[in-house]
Amino acid sequence: MGKLITFEGIEGSGKSTQIKLVAEYLSRKNVELVVTQEPSGTDIGRKIGSILFNRGHGHLCAEAEMFLFCAARAQHVREIIMPALEQNKVVLCDRFSDATYAYQGFGRGLNQEFIRLMNDYSAMLLKPDLTLLFDLPVEIGLERATARNNKLKEPAATDRFERENMDFHRRIREGYLDILKREPQRFRLIDAGRDVEAIQKEVRRCIGDFINLCD
Amino acid sequence: MGKLITFEGIEGSGKSTQIKLVAEYLSRKNVELVVTQEPSGTDIGRKIGSILFNRGHGHLCAEAEMFLFCAARAQHVREIIMPALEQNKVVLCDRFSDATYAYQGFGRGLNQEFIRLMNDYSAMLLKPDLTLLFDLPVEIGLERATARNNKLKEPAATDRFERENMDFHRRIREGYLDILKREPQRFRLIDAGRDVEAIQKEVRRCIGDFINLCD
Repeated sequence: MGKLITFEGIEGSGKSTQIKLVAEYLSRKNVELVVTQEPSGTDIGRKIGSILFNRGHGHLCAEAEMFLFCAARAQHVREIIMPALEQNKVVLCDRFSDATYAYQGFGRGLNQEFIRLMNDYSAMLLKPDLTLLFDLPVEIGLERATARNNKLKEPAATDRFERENMDFHRRIREGYLDILKREPQRFRLIDAGRDVEAIQKEVRRCIGDFINLCD
Repeated sequence: MGKLITFEGIEGSGKSTQIKLVAEYLSRKNVELVVTQEPSGTDIGRKIGSILFNRGHGHLCAEAEMFLFCAARAQHVREIIMPALEQNKVVLCDRFSDATYAYQGFGRGLNQEFIRLMNDYSAMLLKPDLTLLFDLPVEIGLERATARNNKLKEPAATDRFERENMDFHRRIREGYLDILKREPQRFRLIDAGRDVEAIQKEVRRCIGDFINLCD
């Protein structure tokens, strides 16, 4: 079996940039890779994502939001992740079950035991082998997310989650740190407040060490 | 509190025609009504439905299918059904939790205990006050569904569920009869093999009796 490595963190924590860079690095090292993301790692997931992120959907309830993420994960695990792991590949995944726990559990306040059950079922009990948590104060993360959106064609392209208030994002950060405390062996805490190169160096070291350790 | 009355049955069992007719009848009797359906009773639900029924989505896995129906129900109960019941209205709903039990539990073979849990959570523990089960042999139901599709503009407009094989639909019929056996007091079994008028007469009697009994 291959290895599932997930990237987690609040908005603007730089996960996506870091995955892209480390994927290029690992490909150069001839690691057989699949790079994917939730919820939009499949065609079904992209359609589900267009419901979830639509900023016209302010009325989407927390429970439906959770079920939609679980639907996307169920499809993603069965269509993309499990087949890749069975082919002994390394899967780099931008967000996974921990995000549901942090966003819908801590952020939206849904029952955490219930979310754990949903996560297990949607993911066929699959757990990441390694999770990199990109941590930084929410003020800095949201500032970065705003700056990134401003660079895109649509200056006001903030999605339904980015539009939430500061307290929502603070609860998500807390949620992530809570899982890390429960499963310290699975996590690497990355200080995401530094510059891209410094973070990438640490990301490469974490993943490099982990892949070698497991070979 | 109002009353939630659900209409269940296999494809081509005539539920939708019967709801329309009985809704007209009840409106004439000045019953305060909301007529709705799952999964497409809300704008969010209609978007979810377009993923579920798309016949290009043969690869949609059973688990994602179940989560999508639950997402639509979570939104539907909170946005439409509960507010209507709180206004003391009678809600006529074309399919509800029992359909998830019959289709995803019996039809797709997913764990029935898990589905019960999902149903309870998505529906805020809300149970129908009365359920009319339109029962008939699947061969006749599917023949009717095909005839109906042929009358529409697109002759080949069968959806992802109608394209399933006869055994799938037989399991769904069994599933419905299984719930009826467990909760006989909630159900009325309607012989849906008769003509529209005979069935409508029975539907009016069932609902009329029930509303009066409860008043």
